Amino acid sequence: MHILGFDIGGTKSIVGVADETGTVLAKKRIETRGHLGPAQALTRLKAAAHEVVCESGAKVDAIGIGCGGPLDRRSGIIHVVPNLPGWQGICLTHEFGNEFDVPAYLENDANAAAMGEHFFGAGKGVDDFVFLIVGTGIGGGIIANGKIYRGYGENAGEIGHHKIRPEGPPCPCGDRGCLESLASGTSIARIARDRLASKPKTVLWDWIASPGEVTAEMVARAARKGDEFASRVWFECMENLGIGVANVVNIFNPRLVIIGGGVTKAGDMLFEPVRKVVRERAMPELAKDVEIVPAANGELMGLMGAFAVALTETSTL
Amino acid sequence: MHILGFDIGGTKSIVGVADETGTVLAKKRIETRGHLGPAQALTRLKAAAHEVVCESGAKVDAIGIGCGGPLDRRSGIIHVVPNLPGWQGICLTHEFGNEFDVPAYLENDANAAAMGEHFFGAGKGVDDFVFLIVGTGIGGGIIANGKIYRGYGENAGEIGHHKIRPEGPPCPCGDRGCLESLASGTSIARIARDRLASKPKTVLWDWIASPGEVTAEMVARAARKGDEFASRVWFECMENLGIGVANVVNIFNPRLVIIGGGVTKAGDMLFEPVRKVVRERAMPELAKDVEIVPAANGELMGLMGAFAVALTETSTL
Repeated sequence: MHILGFDIGGTKSIVGVADETGTVLAKKRIETRGHLGPAQALTRLKAAAHEVVCESGAKVDAIGIGCGGPLDRRSGIIHVVPNLPGWQGICLTHEFGNEFDVPAYLENDANAAAMGEHFFGAGKGVDDFVFLIVGTGIGGGIIANGKIYRGYGENAGEIGHHKIRPEGPPCPCGDRGCLESLASGTSIARIARDRLASKPKTVLWDWIASPGEVTAEMVARAARKGDEFASRVWFECMENLGIGVANVVNIFNPRLVIIGGGVTKAGDMLFEPVRKVVRERAMPELAKDVEIVPAANGELMGLMGAFAVALTETSTL
Repeated sequence: MHILGFDIGGTKSIVGVADETGTVLAKKRIETRGHLGPAQALTRLKAAAHEVVCESGAKVDAIGIGCGGPLDRRSGIIHVVPNLPGWQGICLTHEFGNEFDVPAYLENDANAAAMGEHFFGAGKGVDDFVFLIVGTGIGGGIIANGKIYRGYGENAGEIGHHKIRPEGPPCPCGDRGCLESLASGTSIARIARDRLASKPKTVLWDWIASPGEVTAEMVARAARKGDEFASRVWFECMENLGIGVANVVNIFNPRLVIIGGGVTKAGDMLFEPVRKVVRERAMPELAKDVEIVPAANGELMGLMGAFAVALTETSTL
């Protein structure tokens, strides 16, 4: 069995071919140029797909597609995706399924990535876990009894938008004080930027010309060097991330909380404070059950997820 | 098919017999006197059970038992239950199953009550909902795809112990700022009591001799009369309850959030502000899916739950 997988993002996409064990036979990363509209991007995605299929030498049996939501998994249609303007109404399963004449399956990127970890990554063999993507935003995927927990309208898992400081900062979702507004990469950078306005002493000034240039990665790097300003920002954000994870533990009693996404490149700088907060603040009998671990699929999180989605769907036919 | 059900609490218990439609043929409420230890209480519970079975005229096919946790559902044994001192290690399924020579099933009270609403109450025909019991504490039961969502260690659903104000008041779980510490009946009374220390003008003084006598029910009653002090306390607590429910909506995308427990006797005084907060603060595409409704089983919440547990377990044999 061979799967063609698409991980479609607004800026970059990854297309690849894998077998049913998740061994990647060929893959290619392309610029999506999603903002130029779907026609051009779809042509480029299809061309890249033919290339990787050819390179893999495999006959493709099914297609998995992961894409930012909201989307309608069943019809294969994407709705208003912020970083894919003009794409609403495009039926991705039809576009790619027809091109290769095999069944195609669509899933939102966070759920797909969670299934990718379940099939091929840190969640292998574990039926109850929660996956958090801490990057630009904070996304979530819930695996319950080995399946994606979707909820009534298939939009469950917005863990990034549970409020832990109800009078906290504004959040892209329109509310305030959501976990995402306090601990995403964007939020870490925003908090640092706002506080740089008062001209504190910090090594960050060596790397930036103006507060607007600061990134979460820089804050982590400066904090690791022991910079006081950066440490305060970073560990405040990690404290909030830990509170969010403690809430997930008390609500779901998971075996694992897997955390992926760009901010986890900080490694122990992220995992150690988060684990400490969970140990101190989650209910003891639930905290003892859980391990908090990094995602295993790294940069290929979305692609491995796309493979897992196609494998799940074809195996339940 | 006839079920004998036990709803066991530290102070009072209800024993009853129902058929598979949930029609109660006989029931009896007794004082548990749990603090006197299990031997006497079990004798009283068994005597009451024989009484209701006799009154119902039915031959009992199975037994369902709901009890405060933590407990081990599979072995039927209860652990250290705060209001049943000295009961740890008692195998309730063995005690009652042997007495009537039929299979017996144990479940924690919040999960049982959620299943009771699913079988016989507000959650009939709805496969994805969250049930909250707002009483002395705040308990939760999650129904996913028509089944109790248990999590890895079977302790999922501690929604009362997700933190929404991390620096908030101490909570019985040992942490601070949990939903329970801000919106349970006990918390409403505690907040009122603490603020009464500064001798505000309020109608509550007509009903109490000292601040320690105030109850959540009095706060609701005074708020309904327009009392300014009581209104401030009550609606602050309802705002927090609403934030907790909005979090549940964003995390689970449920069709229903069913709220039961003593505090819901306040009716619209509880449901209106909670619905308003959810409308304003949950993600719009999730808020539109959900209805927030009172539990239907009322005082019999635990008993109906015990019946539902036995019916679920016997139907999956």
